[in-house]
Amino acid sequence: MNEKLQWLRNKMNSLSMQGMILTNPINIKYLTNIEAEGTLLLTRKENIYITDGRYIEQVHSILTLFDEIIVYDQNDISKDDYENFFLFCENVGFEEYHVSYATYKEMIRKYKINDLVETDHMIEKQRMIKDQEEISNISKACNITDNCFHYLLGFIKPGMTEKQIAKEIDDYYNERAEGPSFETIVASGENSSKPHAVPSDRKIQKQDIITIDMGCKVNGYCSDMTRTIFVGSVPDEVKPVYDLVLKNERQTMQDYKDGASTRILTKMVENDFKLHGYDLIHSLGHGVGLEIHEPPYISYRNDVQLKENMVVTDEPGIYLPGKFGVRIEDTVQISKFGCSSLTNAERGYVVI
Amino acid sequence: MNEKLQWLRNKMNSLSMQGMILTNPINIKYLTNIEAEGTLLLTRKENIYITDGRYIEQVHSILTLFDEIIVYDQNDISKDDYENFFLFCENVGFEEYHVSYATYKEMIRKYKINDLVETDHMIEKQRMIKDQEEISNISKACNITDNCFHYLLGFIKPGMTEKQIAKEIDDYYNERAEGPSFETIVASGENSSKPHAVPSDRKIQKQDIITIDMGCKVNGYCSDMTRTIFVGSVPDEVKPVYDLVLKNERQTMQDYKDGASTRILTKMVENDFKLHGYDLIHSLGHGVGLEIHEPPYISYRNDVQLKENMVVTDEPGIYLPGKFGVRIEDTVQISKFGCSSLTNAERGYVVI
Repeated sequence: MNEKLQWLRNKMNSLSMQGMILTNPINIKYLTNIEAEGTLLLTRKENIYITDGRYIEQVHSILTLFDEIIVYDQNDISKDDYENFFLFCENVGFEEYHVSYATYKEMIRKYKINDLVETDHMIEKQRMIKDQEEISNISKACNITDNCFHYLLGFIKPGMTEKQIAKEIDDYYNERAEGPSFETIVASGENSSKPHAVPSDRKIQKQDIITIDMGCKVNGYCSDMTRTIFVGSVPDEVKPVYDLVLKNERQTMQDYKDGASTRILTKMVENDFKLHGYDLIHSLGHGVGLEIHEPPYISYRNDVQLKENMVVTDEPGIYLPGKFGVRIEDTVQISKFGCSSLTNAERGYVVI
Repeated sequence: MNEKLQWLRNKMNSLSMQGMILTNPINIKYLTNIEAEGTLLLTRKENIYITDGRYIEQVHSILTLFDEIIVYDQNDISKDDYENFFLFCENVGFEEYHVSYATYKEMIRKYKINDLVETDHMIEKQRMIKDQEEISNISKACNITDNCFHYLLGFIKPGMTEKQIAKEIDDYYNERAEGPSFETIVASGENSSKPHAVPSDRKIQKQDIITIDMGCKVNGYCSDMTRTIFVGSVPDEVKPVYDLVLKNERQTMQDYKDGASTRILTKMVENDFKLHGYDLIHSLGHGVGLEIHEPPYISYRNDVQLKENMVVTDEPGIYLPGKFGVRIEDTVQISKFGCSSLTNAERGYVVI
């Protein structure tokens, strides 16, 4: 059996869980590499994937004997089959954060399960720790992102619109990776003061500040990087803000390591910002993997300890409404005694 | 109050429902035009929208006095406020198909509600019947789709890849509308035999068949159209299949009207296909609106009656694995005694 399914089987054993119904496509991709709609059943003796007839070929082409997964066309499964999958099973897990209340009731009826039990993000928690292959995929996505940023420095010219630049980034990612991992942000001038700005028809001007938040996907795994750059020169009013954001981004990277508390990490940046008269209005970072935003969330609201081989962002930002904003973000891999950044584009002043 | 919220209030009254918690963003957009993350509460006396501080301005810019919706920042709402929203309410509705089992439990705890009740797609069912403004938006999206198809006939040349053509369609939609309403399908040669093909690097050849499934969005509302076209000439082996699909697409358009049964409509196409040795392997159509696929689903599995001002697709297709496929699809508006197609690109043989 593949390692991830074997891990899940062991975890289920340790919880005396006799079966599991998995429907979250991200968790299914994580466990099996399957990307076709369907349901993964872990019954007492078998791993079963139930899918639509249209996807049978595609699923078979991904699986190997080693996966030990039996594939069924949902049209070939009778009412009795459903009831037999978990016959005499006492403790069948389901993904209560993914399954709607209506589907929960339908599962109980269809599989005739008496004790469908919550699994409390069991797989999402495991997904926080990346293995070698996952880190290799994220690294590749990060390299392509560094290269794209480098390419942009020669591409961006005054007169271009934010939308044009965003489209160039998306095209770059579509050609060299599986496309962007989220909606690319290109926010110039006063637009940069909105952390979630959408690229507009605003044209880049001769003395502009531009925040670019970008990332792509490789084998389903994401990268995430933000740089704030300048056209012509760095305005005097921006320098102290940029310096403060960069100082905190670097300090956080010093502090990220196995065992560090997400709450304390965030509080440190918040306090340094406050000391200078600014606020940290969003979280300091988030996990990156098959999803662009996934646990752990690095904010004062959430106190978890970072662990070796988590991959998270480090992204402090300061936003002065109607004026400008500065955010600097890297995707980093946590290690035993520190961390290493997987994105590595220039972090100091970049003037084009 | 706006008409759609007033309709919902009346509906709730008729069901003795004293409150409602809405979280499905599509339903919220439908009822209020708001497109920012948040929760819509219909309490005994007020309509309340709870959102993230970042979206407050955006929400206010969309709403008018006429909407009678009070907007709150979620950070300003206390534990007591939550418990007071539905104080003494006996029957509070929620969207059981959208709310996860975990959120359902959290809602009961947070709002202190004893009887959170299922609403059985109450709003989705209403959304099936479009008003004048909705039909106008869909019509605009359909016109842009017709024009895009017409543009493509001059654009497509042998040697181009499926991906290049799909990108041209997406660019067209990004410039003239709110982008594509789903992942554009361009499937050529043997790829056309896969109903859900993803555009590949396959190059268009001199005697090719190409299936193009395309649509865009206007004010959030979708269009959906498929045409199967030919390079050079129509191969003899394809003609009888194309003719059979087109005959059934036209016949279905004759039969679509207020009161028609989705099951019988589908059975008629299925039977005519079987008579000629083919199968209908997907549904005959689906509703189109704020979502590209929404109720009613037109298949033999689902027996509902079409109603005036539903907007649905008519999309029979035949697929010969490894050889070729033909699908012809239009978006049509149901009327009292018939229907009218909102997409109108040429349906006969198109040879480029």
